[in-house]
Amino acid sequence: MFNFVDTLKQLVECPSVSTDPKFKDGMTGAAFLFCDLFRQIGMEVELVKTPLHPIIVAERKGPKAWPHVVIYGHYDVQPADPYEEWKTQPFDATVKDGRMYGRGSADNKGPLLAHVAAVASLLEENPSLPLRITFVVEGEEEIGSLSLEDFLVKQRERISGDFVFVSDTCSPSPDQIVVTTALRGNFSVNVELTGPNNDLHSGLHGGALRNPIQALCTLCASLHNADGSVNVPGFYDGVLPVENWEREELKKYPLTEAAYKTFLGIDSFFSEKPYGPLEAVRFRPTLEFNGIGGGYQGPGSKTVIPSKAFVKITCRLVPDQNAADIQDKLIETLKERCPSGTKMEIERGHASGAYLVVPPGKSNSNPQMNPRLSVAFRAVNEAIEKHFGKRPLFMREGGSIPVFSSIKSVTEMDSLMVGLFTPDSNLHAPNESVHLQMLMNATEAFKDVLRSVADAR
Amino acid sequence: MFNFVDTLKQLVECPSVSTDPKFKDGMTGAAFLFCDLFRQIGMEVELVKTPLHPIIVAERKGPKAWPHVVIYGHYDVQPADPYEEWKTQPFDATVKDGRMYGRGSADNKGPLLAHVAAVASLLEENPSLPLRITFVVEGEEEIGSLSLEDFLVKQRERISGDFVFVSDTCSPSPDQIVVTTALRGNFSVNVELTGPNNDLHSGLHGGALRNPIQALCTLCASLHNADGSVNVPGFYDGVLPVENWEREELKKYPLTEAAYKTFLGIDSFFSEKPYGPLEAVRFRPTLEFNGIGGGYQGPGSKTVIPSKAFVKITCRLVPDQNAADIQDKLIETLKERCPSGTKMEIERGHASGAYLVVPPGKSNSNPQMNPRLSVAFRAVNEAIEKHFGKRPLFMREGGSIPVFSSIKSVTEMDSLMVGLFTPDSNLHAPNESVHLQMLMNATEAFKDVLRSVADAR
Repeated sequence: MFNFVDTLKQLVECPSVSTDPKFKDGMTGAAFLFCDLFRQIGMEVELVKTPLHPIIVAERKGPKAWPHVVIYGHYDVQPADPYEEWKTQPFDATVKDGRMYGRGSADNKGPLLAHVAAVASLLEENPSLPLRITFVVEGEEEIGSLSLEDFLVKQRERISGDFVFVSDTCSPSPDQIVVTTALRGNFSVNVELTGPNNDLHSGLHGGALRNPIQALCTLCASLHNADGSVNVPGFYDGVLPVENWEREELKKYPLTEAAYKTFLGIDSFFSEKPYGPLEAVRFRPTLEFNGIGGGYQGPGSKTVIPSKAFVKITCRLVPDQNAADIQDKLIETLKERCPSGTKMEIERGHASGAYLVVPPGKSNSNPQMNPRLSVAFRAVNEAIEKHFGKRPLFMREGGSIPVFSSIKSVTEMDSLMVGLFTPDSNLHAPNESVHLQMLMNATEAFKDVLRSVADAR
Repeated sequence: MFNFVDTLKQLVECPSVSTDPKFKDGMTGAAFLFCDLFRQIGMEVELVKTPLHPIIVAERKGPKAWPHVVIYGHYDVQPADPYEEWKTQPFDATVKDGRMYGRGSADNKGPLLAHVAAVASLLEENPSLPLRITFVVEGEEEIGSLSLEDFLVKQRERISGDFVFVSDTCSPSPDQIVVTTALRGNFSVNVELTGPNNDLHSGLHGGALRNPIQALCTLCASLHNADGSVNVPGFYDGVLPVENWEREELKKYPLTEAAYKTFLGIDSFFSEKPYGPLEAVRFRPTLEFNGIGGGYQGPGSKTVIPSKAFVKITCRLVPDQNAADIQDKLIETLKERCPSGTKMEIERGHASGAYLVVPPGKSNSNPQMNPRLSVAFRAVNEAIEKHFGKRPLFMREGGSIPVFSSIKSVTEMDSLMVGLFTPDSNLHAPNESVHLQMLMNATEAFKDVLRSVADAR
């Protein structure tokens, strides 16, 4: 059995930044380190080529009758900029106060290594365990999993197992684990309004025509109602109701509204009525303006009527909304409301749906759920309680990870998502870190889960 | 008598860009060329120092009983950039098809030279003409007349005459002169809204709080009514009604709504009801958004809720609105409407009032008008008709030139503004030009006006 902390240190010290060609060697190093690790623990390894960064497939094969767990992770990391805000070197892993600091320690090398360690230890203890295991570790998660869907389609038979086991989500604290039951989908729409064909002098022409900034503000202001809801016909089509058990879980979430307000630095919330802020970010679709621009943005003032103004919109969607359908409805509404005297150009961006997997025994559980996933859900509840001292919360999350809806649509596998980083892990930011004891506890819990799945065949 | 075209050529070839220290020699050259010209025609000249560019004062003195006309102009010009868009060299005056091309030919060297030529010719013909004349030619008009008010205050006695005679406004064509009867005032207000204390991930937090772009759009959208009027309590306080004679003059203005629409490149106007677009730009105050910005403005999309968003607003004011008062009212309204969950910062910019001078004999003429200005107004009507073939239109203009309200407030002089550039003069733009015959005709007309004022003593 490999040394967990030393191995994680080695992994973090491979600067595997997928977006930047300068880090090609770091990508190669991290990929081969994982390949080597999988071979050490007795798995068959293939590095599957893609147009950019290869995908690692590591398999413990076995008879078809054995349950088959697919474990997903990624070996690439976010860029470390701005370097000057790091207290330690981002690619020089440093252990301090029970945490390991370094880029990728929490996203996703540490949590992924907990799965590897669980499999390693389990197979060492029980070399004949009746369980097929396939690790799929990609190198493009931080740049949108460009090659993953194509890979899944091509290797569908080989990758299709009973469920996906993964740790790439958040838990509120090292002792309160969250099993994520839903992720929001999202889509983007960019809008540009053109008024006059050139920037105009606001003295000579002001008053005669529609100013495109005024038009854009009127258009944007029309997209929400005073109660915070989105004013786009059909925007809420397909939204599943929130179940009581979900509200009950949320009540146990260790974050008060007061603490959340302080964290955000605001003096009042603004969530869709009647949902509270902690509910709205998990349970409701949203329409957000991510950027706006037009006219003169320098210091002081300039008496110009600009020719153009633009806004960038993204919407978050919840189960079971159809992303393309809601995107169509927004675009239709924007076109209908295009203010007179302006011309509208719309750029339609990506769209991906929400993802939902309800644990067994809940009011809205899927009666068709893979029985081995049902076993895993029950096992994870007990194993987390045993190794962390508290049972996990089963909760929706506001973010979007399109990987899991892709996997679901190609292979029909659902995902069991156990969060192993915390809000203070500084994901995608300077001073990223992971709590080492959390990973140790998770390794033990994951062993229990995998053992239960093997036993349940 | 100097040669008009040669002299204007020499003036244009002095690159007197007041905003750019590189053109210091051009400023000095233009100033001394004017000084020399004034001395040639028998005037006493003083170059009055200011913190930046000196003001030329050229005087034909005489007994106090003589009428006293102050002629205003400026010897500085706008920068010539972008040079590559000029068809000729901007500081190499070129005569073609009856126009002189070059930076400053129309703004303001050509029109000012018509006044100088009129005075020169008049005094040559009649050396004992009973008329005091003072030219005030500044070098900072293009950078906001920074030193003029201080100069006026200090030299109030010396500069105070019967009225100001000036050509720094626009006429629609070389044969249709406009005498400008009003200029709009303006003020600026910049607004910044802050929501959360940092940019946030729109998945993790979207739905909980007010997005500052959404807040800003709602705030901005609230500032106009659907009929195009400004929705700020008290915004129209002090607005003088438009008189029938003003509407009648506008009907004679040689620009159709259809041609104006084509010029602007729009398919419909948006003016405050019930005013038409050509009325609104002259007769009504406006609130314009000159710039807006916030969040991500690069290509594609980014799922961020920005911390801040800002908008830049300027308002145009009409007679007799009080600029500081309307600015206060807007700021008060913005503060009252600050959306919950955001903090507002307001930057109060400059504010200057509108300027109005109604010709004698109109329904809204000032019965207290200086009688020599009344004479000049009547004379200009006849003289323009005689030398241009059409009587001038007496019309308000939408732009703002704070100089004339400054002069009015310090010296109580009103201004007689005769437009000598045209829309195709490309003011502040590449390929600036002036119509030479228009300047010749104006020279003759101005002689008639000055002679009438002298005769009327």
